[in-house]
Amino acid sequence: QDCEFLLLGNLSPQVQQTTIQRLKNRPKLIVLDTMNFWMDIALDDLLATLKLVDVLTINDAEARQLSGEYSLVKAAEKILQMGPSYLIIKKGEHGALLFQGDRMFYCPALPLEEVFDPTGAGDTFVGGFIGYLAKTDDISFENMRKAIVHGSAMASFCVEKFGTERLFEITEADLASRVNEFRELASF
Amino acid sequence: QDCEFLLLGNLSPQVQQTTIQRLKNRPKLIVLDTMNFWMDIALDDLLATLKLVDVLTINDAEARQLSGEYSLVKAAEKILQMGPSYLIIKKGEHGALLFQGDRMFYCPALPLEEVFDPTGAGDTFVGGFIGYLAKTDDISFENMRKAIVHGSAMASFCVEKFGTERLFEITEADLASRVNEFRELASF
Repeated sequence: QDCEFLLLGNLSPQVQQTTIQRLKNRPKLIVLDTMNFWMDIALDDLLATLKLVDVLTINDAEARQLSGEYSLVKAAEKILQMGPSYLIIKKGEHGALLFQGDRMFYCPALPLEEVFDPTGAGDTFVGGFIGYLAKTDDISFENMRKAIVHGSAMASFCVEKFGTERLFEITEADLASRVNEFRELASF
Repeated sequence: QDCEFLLLGNLSPQVQQTTIQRLKNRPKLIVLDTMNFWMDIALDDLLATLKLVDVLTINDAEARQLSGEYSLVKAAEKILQMGPSYLIIKKGEHGALLFQGDRMFYCPALPLEEVFDPTGAGDTFVGGFIGYLAKTDDISFENMRKAIVHGSAMASFCVEKFGTERLFEITEADLASRVNEFRELASF
């Protein structure tokens, strides 16, 4: 109760929906993670739940499945009419896209020398994303861009060691330095 | 003869090599495009030709095949020891990477509403790349970043109509405006 930033992990849409309904006050921002499995077996529940959230995170194949569109721009247009104001499309080693209205942001993934263990990279990404928004208490599109970069930077640490090991080691300075690598990577 | 910027299209490595050898003066910059087919049937010729060029452009699968490394960072390290000073790895709808020494640039592709005809997008990309370098007469890493964005912007126009149709229509202002979309897309 009384959370301001709510992240609904990838569970059954019914459980996600019940969680929202049991909150006495609506959070400032609700982020929902889901996957193709729920689109296959619980699409109606998922569509009902989508109407209650602000941000949806899925991967590119799932965005195509949910919308029936191959073009991610067209897919985003359709999905943004299903309820969420923001859509994040995760493309793994190819980065992530953020859509809101007709605005778009592309955060490339940092090419890595070695991926030791990719387990948890997606969860770390979305955790870093909402964590940054909660810490800065700013849900503007401009700040969401930065939040996506912070989530991507966190995920790039996650895969360097087993499980959550690496995440326990890093400092704020490590994170700031990695975020700068992202800035340098795509600037021209 | 006497060209300063030479682009060797995707032909047999032997033809590419002969072309270089017949030039009386070495161009300021030689860019070589190749593909998996030549790696399969003419690897020795390709490796000999690589020693003579400055920039190699291949796609991600080809970079992995040529280097035997899955990580594109490791693949780039190995390929840059084969001769070229610069490596461009094209990732289609996921953008392009530029490597030189331990420097790296990631140019995301502009997500498009509709791809009418993708034929020629790769050739347009590399043509736009070397065209920008020739026009600005600057082969620094910083300018190569801009050249990659210009190549990507040209390619994004190419796919909007059939064949070369769209490329005949666009003006310098259209190109500048598209380049700005790339800047906006990835800035944070």
